[in-house]
Amino acid sequence: MKTQPLKGMRDMLPAEQALRDYIQGQILETYRAAGFERISTPILEDMENLDKSEGGDNLNLIFKVMKRGDKLASALAKGEEKGLSDMGLRYDLTLPLSRYYAANRAVLPNPFKVIQTDRVYRAERPQKGRLREFVQCDIDILGDSSPNAEVELIDVTTRALLKIGFTGFTVNINDRRILRGMLESMGFAADTLDSVCITFDKMDKIGAEGVAKELTEKQLPADAIQQLADFIAAGDVTLDAVAARCADPAIADDLKYVLNTATALAGGRYGVAYSPSLVRGQGYYTGMVFEVNCPQFAGAVAGGGRYDNMVGKFIGQQVPAVGFSIGFERVCGILLEQGYQIPGAKKKLALLYLPHVDFTAVLQKAEALRSEYNVTVLPQAKKLGKQFGQLENAGFGAVAFADNDDVKLLGQNK
Amino acid sequence: MKTQPLKGMRDMLPAEQALRDYIQGQILETYRAAGFERISTPILEDMENLDKSEGGDNLNLIFKVMKRGDKLASALAKGEEKGLSDMGLRYDLTLPLSRYYAANRAVLPNPFKVIQTDRVYRAERPQKGRLREFVQCDIDILGDSSPNAEVELIDVTTRALLKIGFTGFTVNINDRRILRGMLESMGFAADTLDSVCITFDKMDKIGAEGVAKELTEKQLPADAIQQLADFIAAGDVTLDAVAARCADPAIADDLKYVLNTATALAGGRYGVAYSPSLVRGQGYYTGMVFEVNCPQFAGAVAGGGRYDNMVGKFIGQQVPAVGFSIGFERVCGILLEQGYQIPGAKKKLALLYLPHVDFTAVLQKAEALRSEYNVTVLPQAKKLGKQFGQLENAGFGAVAFADNDDVKLLGQNK
Repeated sequence: MKTQPLKGMRDMLPAEQALRDYIQGQILETYRAAGFERISTPILEDMENLDKSEGGDNLNLIFKVMKRGDKLASALAKGEEKGLSDMGLRYDLTLPLSRYYAANRAVLPNPFKVIQTDRVYRAERPQKGRLREFVQCDIDILGDSSPNAEVELIDVTTRALLKIGFTGFTVNINDRRILRGMLESMGFAADTLDSVCITFDKMDKIGAEGVAKELTEKQLPADAIQQLADFIAAGDVTLDAVAARCADPAIADDLKYVLNTATALAGGRYGVAYSPSLVRGQGYYTGMVFEVNCPQFAGAVAGGGRYDNMVGKFIGQQVPAVGFSIGFERVCGILLEQGYQIPGAKKKLALLYLPHVDFTAVLQKAEALRSEYNVTVLPQAKKLGKQFGQLENAGFGAVAFADNDDVKLLGQNK
Repeated sequence: MKTQPLKGMRDMLPAEQALRDYIQGQILETYRAAGFERISTPILEDMENLDKSEGGDNLNLIFKVMKRGDKLASALAKGEEKGLSDMGLRYDLTLPLSRYYAANRAVLPNPFKVIQTDRVYRAERPQKGRLREFVQCDIDILGDSSPNAEVELIDVTTRALLKIGFTGFTVNINDRRILRGMLESMGFAADTLDSVCITFDKMDKIGAEGVAKELTEKQLPADAIQQLADFIAAGDVTLDAVAARCADPAIADDLKYVLNTATALAGGRYGVAYSPSLVRGQGYYTGMVFEVNCPQFAGAVAGGGRYDNMVGKFIGQQVPAVGFSIGFERVCGILLEQGYQIPGAKKKLALLYLPHVDFTAVLQKAEALRSEYNVTVLPQAKKLGKQFGQLENAGFGAVAFADNDDVKLLGQNK
């Protein structure tokens, strides 16, 4: 039998898990203090829902769960891949939230300020910083079309990042509609813009030439591609310059409002910037998009945006929605590399007992010590000095004994 | 698109999720105070590992994840179900823990006292109290063959149940080896005992006749079946009577030790009892087994036992192991029905703001109020009285205003 976890998935050792639980607890506490409420949804979703969710490249990365019994047999008889599965593992928390809101909106507050922290799955080629199973920490506001929703998500998410000791980051913000307006003005047809945007978002990675090459492969108009490539190659693109090509000035005003308000709230603790090429991978975003970048990591450590049409797919009626998701694995990875320590953790104490002791009394003594320590009961070894060394290495700060009242401090605590 | 979650899976509304998080937090705090450390493993496991895990009926309930790309195409060409999948969703946390311990034992303490609280999956026919996705809260001790490990698990698990306000339960305990010894003495062959035990465990549900019927269907010896059915039908089976048919008296002594010590630790706060028919469903248990029963629920709300051979399947060397798992869904369900309230939760305050206000100042005021309240910023409605009513219904205890220093208490807090 295989002892290693599956490719792209991880076992968490106790020290890392303790750090993850602590960080998640701090993020949740920040979110809850801001009046957001946690929900949860199943990890499995209906395959049709996933297929129609406009998740961009992520739709190719869905783990599909096989049908069972007779349903599987009859699908297998047809020999087609499509019929073999009717549910899959979610690739994000936005599609499940939209379905959830559609099902439960009658009993949810309006606006609905919601937290999700949970596992998602993508069958990516495993590489550093990209796992096939990972945790996202999302907050979303549903039912609020005002740009104050964007401001609030940015305020609360950055507060969570600061609370866990994460610094030196920048919040990059854009509005897809400004970008789409500009792209239309260059000659890209409206029904190709999603596809153009997904390529354009790779600008920072593949440059003007790479964008042109990918768009040419997508068989888009050569003239429009040339204009876009020239625009990228020219560099130094200001919001005013891009907005000038967009038909609706109110959109640029909203973006400026969010940029200015978020900058005021940041008060210099982190950066806030306009990012003209930012579109985010998902096809479902309809307006502003934003992500958090930092020098320690090439990709984004958090990302989000407005997705006003997603809930409408379920109920046939538009519900404004905007969300911000922290890439928990990336944040934890960076903090671990920085040697992050959990502040104020209870000291670990080992309560040692000899054979044939009254074990009821041992456990009762352990319980009495637990107001002050996390107490582990352990058999006392013959070589006490060696055992002390092992306990110290395992992070114990103190040792007590079942048969006397001594408490011995270990290591740095001595 | 479908708005309901998949069959046998649940969306959690904010109030229930808050309760679940609180209860899980209390359980985790109890486990950690007792020196147990949390780990986590992926939800997906290698299909071969799952198939060889002796999970009893659960092996028929595994959700299988489809292979992808070329691997799927070549499996599909063969038209056989078996080759289509190489991984599955875990049906419990014991198999993943055994794999984890095998992979990481060099860096883990000995004995290893470990916590797992996470989701597991079983493709059961949905019914009350049985979901297809559910959470288990497990503690396990690996590397300790002494019955003190059983005592400690029972002590810590029952302490967690008491801490969350769960009362009126009984811990039922048995040892499979005593049961197996008795069954062998009745004439069942050693290699059929797992199968006999799985049927015998249903004694409370299907009675002596049902057991006889199921064993007859399994084509076991009629004479042995008759002896067992008579034994069950006679009722009032004592530990001494059963143990008398078991070859090794040390096993019965250990069981008595655990029963007596657990009874002393209970101090009358809950029941501790010998349960002669208890075997638990999983095939992997090797010695003592236990479960927690209560009048509010027909099945067990927690269950566990010793599984000394499971880690050995991975590393070819026996590692003693024992675990106890709280059925989190069942416990939460019972507490919800009892109208459980989270003690000491922070009061929710709504900070209302008018249009065109300085939103930076609103969010800064909200943050200042968060030392005392969970503060939600919301646009102020035109009809303030109606908004107060809605806020009160949504659980808000107070309202404040962005443009003045009033704080208005709502409802019972007035």
